[in-house]
Amino acid sequence: MTVGDLGEFGVVNRITGRLPQGAAVMLGPGDDAAMVGVPDGRVVVSTDLLLEGRHFRRDWSSGYDVGRKAAAQNLADVAAMGAVPTAIVVGLGIPADLPLEWLDALTDGFGDECATVGASVAGGDVTRCDLVVLGVTALGDLAGRDPVTRSGARPGQVVAVSGRLGYAAAGWALLEAGAPQDSPALQEAVAGHRRPCPPYAMGPQAAELGASAMLDVSDGLLQDLGHIAAASGVRVEVDPQAFTVGEPVAAAAKELGTDPLEWVLTGGEDHALAAVFPANVRLPATWQVVGRVVEGDGVLVYGREIGQPGWDHFR
Amino acid sequence: MTVGDLGEFGVVNRITGRLPQGAAVMLGPGDDAAMVGVPDGRVVVSTDLLLEGRHFRRDWSSGYDVGRKAAAQNLADVAAMGAVPTAIVVGLGIPADLPLEWLDALTDGFGDECATVGASVAGGDVTRCDLVVLGVTALGDLAGRDPVTRSGARPGQVVAVSGRLGYAAAGWALLEAGAPQDSPALQEAVAGHRRPCPPYAMGPQAAELGASAMLDVSDGLLQDLGHIAAASGVRVEVDPQAFTVGEPVAAAAKELGTDPLEWVLTGGEDHALAAVFPANVRLPATWQVVGRVVEGDGVLVYGREIGQPGWDHFR
Repeated sequence: MTVGDLGEFGVVNRITGRLPQGAAVMLGPGDDAAMVGVPDGRVVVSTDLLLEGRHFRRDWSSGYDVGRKAAAQNLADVAAMGAVPTAIVVGLGIPADLPLEWLDALTDGFGDECATVGASVAGGDVTRCDLVVLGVTALGDLAGRDPVTRSGARPGQVVAVSGRLGYAAAGWALLEAGAPQDSPALQEAVAGHRRPCPPYAMGPQAAELGASAMLDVSDGLLQDLGHIAAASGVRVEVDPQAFTVGEPVAAAAKELGTDPLEWVLTGGEDHALAAVFPANVRLPATWQVVGRVVEGDGVLVYGREIGQPGWDHFR
Repeated sequence: MTVGDLGEFGVVNRITGRLPQGAAVMLGPGDDAAMVGVPDGRVVVSTDLLLEGRHFRRDWSSGYDVGRKAAAQNLADVAAMGAVPTAIVVGLGIPADLPLEWLDALTDGFGDECATVGASVAGGDVTRCDLVVLGVTALGDLAGRDPVTRSGARPGQVVAVSGRLGYAAAGWALLEAGAPQDSPALQEAVAGHRRPCPPYAMGPQAAELGASAMLDVSDGLLQDLGHIAAASGVRVEVDPQAFTVGEPVAAAAKELGTDPLEWVLTGGEDHALAAVFPANVRLPATWQVVGRVVEGDGVLVYGREIGQPGWDHFR
């Protein structure tokens, strides 16, 4: 059975029927708009567009994977401000011949990823489109904290990361090369492309620990640290030897005969968090110091200044 | 010059440079997320996906028209809850060969439509896509009022509308027929397709006047009133003689030899507001009573019950 068999309102009812509502949602799907509680009086909001063929492929990722990934990358943006995600809304473009099983899996992926942070899908919109298009907007609450922006890095501070780096790039490279996935490590790398695991709770934790700048790594660590450098008017020096290369990333690099550190430093879509802390901070093991902030501009690694080594959607 | 010549970050800078920030935006574009003030502690949120070829055509509408229309339909959803729109965020998919003039016009359309209600574009996301895709999410504040949902209609109440009806459908029909636009009235009908004029301020006004149910007319009045009937467990009786047919709608109907009232009753995309009020309400001239709420279900017009005469995206 396909989406077209069900019709627009049947599709909407089917989606909303699978989605439990979280505590912050005061009015869920079914009206002109949803209503979400923001006790703080300031709502954090981030939006992303995900396109079939560009951000995911239906032959490489299941509907469930796509739902989790689409939710994750927006929830991570909210966490990267130091906020707790509360809800997402989803604009969904789907072909009429899309199997209902795929739609159900997508819906469950959205719901399950949101549930990992106590959030839920508060509303959305469904329209017909030749390819699958997802417009996802996440909301969050700062619980009285100041937002952690990109502009607060100061010379003398340290740069730390939390979460995976290089997994998504390694998995994508394996899939593109048609490489075998005959070990748990290689399978985990591919899973890293299909479904990122952002360290959501580390966002508010970093804020509590005094982070002065933070972002989520969506386009590649070096490029994203460049945003902090530019917004803060500082230089970021990255120590490549400070990184622990994940076993799946190392295995994929061995399989494809490439340098794993390149994926760690420039691979996007893992949605790790990168934050800048005061020099005297005592960081828990969830954070790894990988560099420092100095006077100047740009990002320095291996003693060389980095131009723009990450992802540009138009280049 | 095209979008591709500028690259992703050049495009982002170009867009944000054209967009002033409204009073509610506490942190605008340029970070992982924006931050918008919601003094009420409850944020109203609505999202829509607009696709080239389905919701607009670049040969029928300018970039400026598309921006205004995309903003309008989301701002109207927020107003239809009785809320004041405060900000939108936009996920933007555009081809690399899109002329920069078109992008600039689109940006200005978003900004200008938001400015009509004191809102602004607080953030967004840009990605490459073969067609123009817009994922728009609007936020709003209720200023302490209860949201006006679809489920509050009760027998004995009256149904009223505010804003244009039938203009967008008439304009679309003229364009599709390749009909001449050789009079101001016909030109106004076409303009009605390109750029709706939702009566935003009437949303909060209806809430203050005691509206117990409300929505914006996006799929056609009869179909949308059917949502109120279903959500409220009532029947809505519509009096077709109560409508004033706009001069542009009448002119288009004459040109194409059709019944203008059909566009008024079933045409979508004008984003008028339809609301249900207590029987003894004293409505200002901005509202026109067009029906009443009785016991039963469905929507009755000309003594006949209406099935689903509006727009279904999958049918």
